[in-house]
Amino acid sequence: MSKLRVAIIGAGPSGLAQLRAFQSAAQNGEEIPEIVCFEKQDDWGGLWNYTWRTGLDENGEPVHCSMYRYLWSNGPKEGLEFADYSFEEHFGKQIASYPPRAVLMDYIEGRVKKANVRDWIRFNSAIRWVEYNEDASNFTITVHDHATDSTYKEDFDHVICASGHFSTPNVPFYEGFDTFNGRVLHAHDFRDAREFAGKDILVMGSSYSAEDIGSQCWKYGAKSITSCYRSAPMGFKWPDNWEEKPALEKVDGNTAFFSDGTQKEIDSIILCTGYKHYFNFLPDDLRLKTANRLASADLYKGVVYAHNPKMFYLGMQDQWFTFNMFDAQAWWVRDAIMGKLDIPASKDALLADVKEREEREEASDDVKYAIKYQAEYVKELVAETDYPSFDIDGACQAFFEWKGHKAEDIMAFRNNSYTSVITGTLAPVHHTPWKDALDDSLESYLQN
Amino acid sequence: MSKLRVAIIGAGPSGLAQLRAFQSAAQNGEEIPEIVCFEKQDDWGGLWNYTWRTGLDENGEPVHCSMYRYLWSNGPKEGLEFADYSFEEHFGKQIASYPPRAVLMDYIEGRVKKANVRDWIRFNSAIRWVEYNEDASNFTITVHDHATDSTYKEDFDHVICASGHFSTPNVPFYEGFDTFNGRVLHAHDFRDAREFAGKDILVMGSSYSAEDIGSQCWKYGAKSITSCYRSAPMGFKWPDNWEEKPALEKVDGNTAFFSDGTQKEIDSIILCTGYKHYFNFLPDDLRLKTANRLASADLYKGVVYAHNPKMFYLGMQDQWFTFNMFDAQAWWVRDAIMGKLDIPASKDALLADVKEREEREEASDDVKYAIKYQAEYVKELVAETDYPSFDIDGACQAFFEWKGHKAEDIMAFRNNSYTSVITGTLAPVHHTPWKDALDDSLESYLQN
Repeated sequence: MSKLRVAIIGAGPSGLAQLRAFQSAAQNGEEIPEIVCFEKQDDWGGLWNYTWRTGLDENGEPVHCSMYRYLWSNGPKEGLEFADYSFEEHFGKQIASYPPRAVLMDYIEGRVKKANVRDWIRFNSAIRWVEYNEDASNFTITVHDHATDSTYKEDFDHVICASGHFSTPNVPFYEGFDTFNGRVLHAHDFRDAREFAGKDILVMGSSYSAEDIGSQCWKYGAKSITSCYRSAPMGFKWPDNWEEKPALEKVDGNTAFFSDGTQKEIDSIILCTGYKHYFNFLPDDLRLKTANRLASADLYKGVVYAHNPKMFYLGMQDQWFTFNMFDAQAWWVRDAIMGKLDIPASKDALLADVKEREEREEASDDVKYAIKYQAEYVKELVAETDYPSFDIDGACQAFFEWKGHKAEDIMAFRNNSYTSVITGTLAPVHHTPWKDALDDSLESYLQN
Repeated sequence: MSKLRVAIIGAGPSGLAQLRAFQSAAQNGEEIPEIVCFEKQDDWGGLWNYTWRTGLDENGEPVHCSMYRYLWSNGPKEGLEFADYSFEEHFGKQIASYPPRAVLMDYIEGRVKKANVRDWIRFNSAIRWVEYNEDASNFTITVHDHATDSTYKEDFDHVICASGHFSTPNVPFYEGFDTFNGRVLHAHDFRDAREFAGKDILVMGSSYSAEDIGSQCWKYGAKSITSCYRSAPMGFKWPDNWEEKPALEKVDGNTAFFSDGTQKEIDSIILCTGYKHYFNFLPDDLRLKTANRLASADLYKGVVYAHNPKMFYLGMQDQWFTFNMFDAQAWWVRDAIMGKLDIPASKDALLADVKEREEREEASDDVKYAIKYQAEYVKELVAETDYPSFDIDGACQAFFEWKGHKAEDIMAFRNNSYTSVITGTLAPVHHTPWKDALDDSLESYLQN
């Protein structure tokens, strides 16, 4: 029998976790499948691979990056540390708890450089289409190689979709957007807060993007921030020039009208209205359709596509846990593909697992419940593989503290530090409060 | 034998010309093939279908529109009038010569509404992939129907690609773009000049986008416009606050550095650096690769794909002539598909035709030569079909006058009027000089 061939779509945090998972098995002397990872960008890192570009990239592909300059982690690094590669191992010392983008990118890269898996990735390679062949029980993938501007097809026994779900913006229309006399953009296209210095900005939404982009604009000199919500305000203690409003009804010229009857003159509108699970390379029989929730639709164990168990998805859940959850998933998928874990043959059994997860998620709206729920999920997967076990309850504790620190002072929560659940070390307090630290470079951040 | 099936990709000016061409034959009692036109947007008009959106649209597809608010035609309407549907027929009177977008969109729509071809179009339908089947001598098209969020395949005997080539931006990188403290955008994402009121803007490029977007920004209150060129300046008599510079070398912070050693503080950078022929739904054996030139590579008669003569392309040339040239092409392609015109069987013959056109184009750099060259091309196609012949030399004359008017006063050339080559009527002078006409609505424009 010839070697299994496995395609991984995307070389961001999830795809790289999958490469590391297979490399880890190979390092232990196991025979692993042939792995090909397709990445449409010219470098790895996925969302963490920053670009100044918006819209379409240099190859005409939709820009994957949704990050922006000056972004710092919005949760403590102690909640996402790799169990097999600590921050201390990477940086040679413990670092402060809310690293800027470049620091986290360096950390993500460090592990896969050490694992020496870059040669498994085909860069500048956009997936055009994937098809499952019932007869041959395999997949045909059509790829556009932008380096040569040519297309080709290859067959694989398994496909692991790790293309993320924070790159295709959900962009609602409101009356007056088409005649608004300023910039209307989605968070996906936000790049440099200084563009909005001295401006009155409207931030639509009440989740992480709204909170963080509004905070960036505040930090870098916006004149005022108005944020608006559909269901509930974020409710933090905002600075004096930040006001929360209920739902936007319409804009007229440069005036925004809200559902409480108030209005505000604004220069720019930033839509922090979320992202879509979007796979323009997948036919109906392989394409995941799910809300952004902890129990993704149609994924057994959160990773096996119930309608075709040779197809896997990584990281498609809403996320409290990130890098370490992707690891738990990647190790589990690796072992399923390598036959060390069994996937039930019955589709009913797969879907029953999904249903049980959904019901358990829906049992409570409480945030602590949700964090614990996802922690239990990570524990479940870790227990079934050789991924290094770690103090997941301790990571939850960091999340609980983080929530408290945000409630205390939303513009200062990043000045706190937490204890690593991998090395047991308490992080240093950063040398400069977040609001005063305008330089987000790696060099500046590591000067502790 | 069952009816031929023809797929048209795109319902913009080219695709709509193709629908009208087939409908015209049907109206004359001829039996026409079954026509299916796939349009990824939710309405027809292609580029002329304005949207406030940038980047990705509501379906996650790349936004097709490259137009902006306040856009007026940058050439006289007398150069693009449909021979079978005059401006006077549509508006009930002759109108001024440089209509704003909404007026031209109304005109384009008028003809196809009259032809009653809207039912031939499947909207919200993105083409995912096209494949030629050697065995069956036909094409399989994979479509994503966004209305139902489902994908399907259909077979066709011919494919006519009319998806345009002014939607995928060419976006070069210059040192400092990634750390520039303002907005960097391509012309494709430019929407409302008022965003740049009071700003110092840098417009990169020396072709139509640079000229027109710079002019819009000037008209709507930019503080200064700096445009820069790689080969030659546009050389118009610019207003006092518009300066032409040679090539950009880099930006540092908000300072732009040019190859003549000068520098300028700027707030925003608008890249008017052109577009790419881009077909992310086509494999190598069907995909046109050409520069933006009058003699497109690999297209016999400018429309037949030499490497597979069952595949056609419309409007892929650089354009002096537009709507009327698309018509000439569409009528010709219709007749080729319906067997009324012969396509040589030999690929060598097809490529020899291409070579002859290329050499003839390259014989001179003169602008008048280029306009006449494309006029001859339109004449050639019109002569071989029943498209109503019209005074193409007269249309050239309008172009020549237009060029003169631009050289005289770049901010006033749109105040001139020309004579229709379809109805012989002289256009009225518009009621307001372009620089003072801030309202670009259809209602305002038609008040002559």
